[in-house]
Amino acid sequence: MKAGEDKLVQRIVKALAPKGGPLLALGVGDDAALLTPRPGYDTILTCDWFLEGTHFLPGKHPADSVGWKCLARALSDIAAMGGQPRCFLLSLALPGKLTLKKKGRGSGWLNEFLGGLGRAARRFGCVLAGGDTTKRREVLINVAVVGEVLAGRALQRSGAKAGDRIFVSGRLGEAELGLQKLRQGARASLRNDRALRKHLYPKPRLALGQWLADRKLASSMIDLSDGLSSDLPRLCAASGVGARIEVAQIPSPKVSLTATASKRFDALGLALNGGDDYELLFTVSANKAPRIPRSLQGIALTEIGEVTRERRVVMVQQDGSTKPLLPRGWDPFRK
Amino acid sequence: MKAGEDKLVQRIVKALAPKGGPLLALGVGDDAALLTPRPGYDTILTCDWFLEGTHFLPGKHPADSVGWKCLARALSDIAAMGGQPRCFLLSLALPGKLTLKKKGRGSGWLNEFLGGLGRAARRFGCVLAGGDTTKRREVLINVAVVGEVLAGRALQRSGAKAGDRIFVSGRLGEAELGLQKLRQGARASLRNDRALRKHLYPKPRLALGQWLADRKLASSMIDLSDGLSSDLPRLCAASGVGARIEVAQIPSPKVSLTATASKRFDALGLALNGGDDYELLFTVSANKAPRIPRSLQGIALTEIGEVTRERRVVMVQQDGSTKPLLPRGWDPFRK
Repeated sequence: MKAGEDKLVQRIVKALAPKGGPLLALGVGDDAALLTPRPGYDTILTCDWFLEGTHFLPGKHPADSVGWKCLARALSDIAAMGGQPRCFLLSLALPGKLTLKKKGRGSGWLNEFLGGLGRAARRFGCVLAGGDTTKRREVLINVAVVGEVLAGRALQRSGAKAGDRIFVSGRLGEAELGLQKLRQGARASLRNDRALRKHLYPKPRLALGQWLADRKLASSMIDLSDGLSSDLPRLCAASGVGARIEVAQIPSPKVSLTATASKRFDALGLALNGGDDYELLFTVSANKAPRIPRSLQGIALTEIGEVTRERRVVMVQQDGSTKPLLPRGWDPFRK
Repeated sequence: MKAGEDKLVQRIVKALAPKGGPLLALGVGDDAALLTPRPGYDTILTCDWFLEGTHFLPGKHPADSVGWKCLARALSDIAAMGGQPRCFLLSLALPGKLTLKKKGRGSGWLNEFLGGLGRAARRFGCVLAGGDTTKRREVLINVAVVGEVLAGRALQRSGAKAGDRIFVSGRLGEAELGLQKLRQGARASLRNDRALRKHLYPKPRLALGQWLADRKLASSMIDLSDGLSSDLPRLCAASGVGARIEVAQIPSPKVSLTATASKRFDALGLALNGGDDYELLFTVSANKAPRIPRSLQGIALTEIGEVTRERRVVMVQQDGSTKPLLPRGWDPFRK
């Protein structure tokens, strides 16, 4: 029943590849993919690991979510540049049993995975252009995404200036709360649990990123993949600046009192250090800041502080005192 | 001693990233890389796994070869399109101990790996544009390469026509012979063993691919990564044709009689089914075939047969009889 590699590629292509479009000159099935760049646009390139045991847990994360999320998180880097996605390469290594269509342990996994991946690809307008497959004891995924942005309009980490206002989209820490709920035994099928949904099916902020880039509103931008306490210092380092953020302004997860008492969810800790949110953190000059609306297409945009000349990242606490913001987000080499 | 992820990225950048050039608008260190496409050129995209235990063996393959080969094999797909490389994304997962600079098991591995990768990057003119790193029990590598080719000039698998002549570059099966020698205990440091060198430090046929594409000489092309018996049928399937190859013409490894007797190296079997050669297989119309020289820049170009209307791939044996060529090259899902 185990299909050879060529058969596996055919299944992936059937599930994901488009019939051929005006942009993609040559898709899956040759040595490499060919893409005709759009004149006047720069090409954006990014890639992301998504590994069993490191980025998802086989007993906890449904295959459908693995498929969705491996693409969504790579697309978040395109959003962070203010770009739009064009195509992606899928590198997939997996045990032979997961390729089984019916009967036996692990059967159906590949179909569910491709289902989730295909939904994300259609939702965010990113087509499969190629990839590589091999057999492996554990599921290993790498997704490389190619995007585009009007030449010279890409938003970088390095453009923040002292005095700029700092904004974040959405609510920080929800994805980490979702992961904790999942670890504590919550069923992944609870589709109306906001935190679980955010953890399993994150939505890259592509429309927001493009909106900011098109209007030249932001001076710098980064996506929040490892957590505010890790990613804000990265943006500051790239810009040669510091930041002062107001704890009271940080949009943190709504944690019910009973949950806090019984399961000890720390809303502020989640918002500062939780990873996987895929929200955007961006800076806007003081004179353009009033043009940032309170929300865009239903996603809250919150001012949380300002960029400082002094190269330290500090938090102003509720009592007015300040303390340094230490990077306690996700770092595989520190844990 | 274990460095955080940001420190690791800094080491990779220091070892590999260029100072910044006219083509790469924004390299490593932001959410994604930015590339300004050259007007009049198509973009080529490809990616390749290179995994410990699957594609290289920790006790056998020096880190320096792992670094060289992970890029070289991805570049072979660019060569197979007739393109030239521009930049690559490196996804690297590895145990913390391999990042140690001195003392302790595994120390020095990362530096050696980056040394080999850097040499390949400079040799083939392909700069690091970005990537992703994480911690893992085993070394996992994925390399995505971006290349370019004059618009409309890319050589595809699908252009072969009945009557076209079939050519291969170099000598087939040498890399597999090198692997077998390595498995049998040959020291990787034997730098003047041709087969070992070919296995450990393959050279993608970029100049040949571009030469064929520039002159519009080839009607189709594929690189030999899995073995002739697997890759020739792929080219035929894509072109809707068959092939007839002459066993006597296939350039196979030189195996000394004593080695054949004692270690049973089967030269023809190696040439038909051995993987990892990264030579080019291409077809040329009968009227252009005389324009193909016997060698180009020291690499032999050998006519091994012709494309047939009948959709079967057969070998003409030394005695004049024919038999089907069955795909017995590398397939992770069949072994």
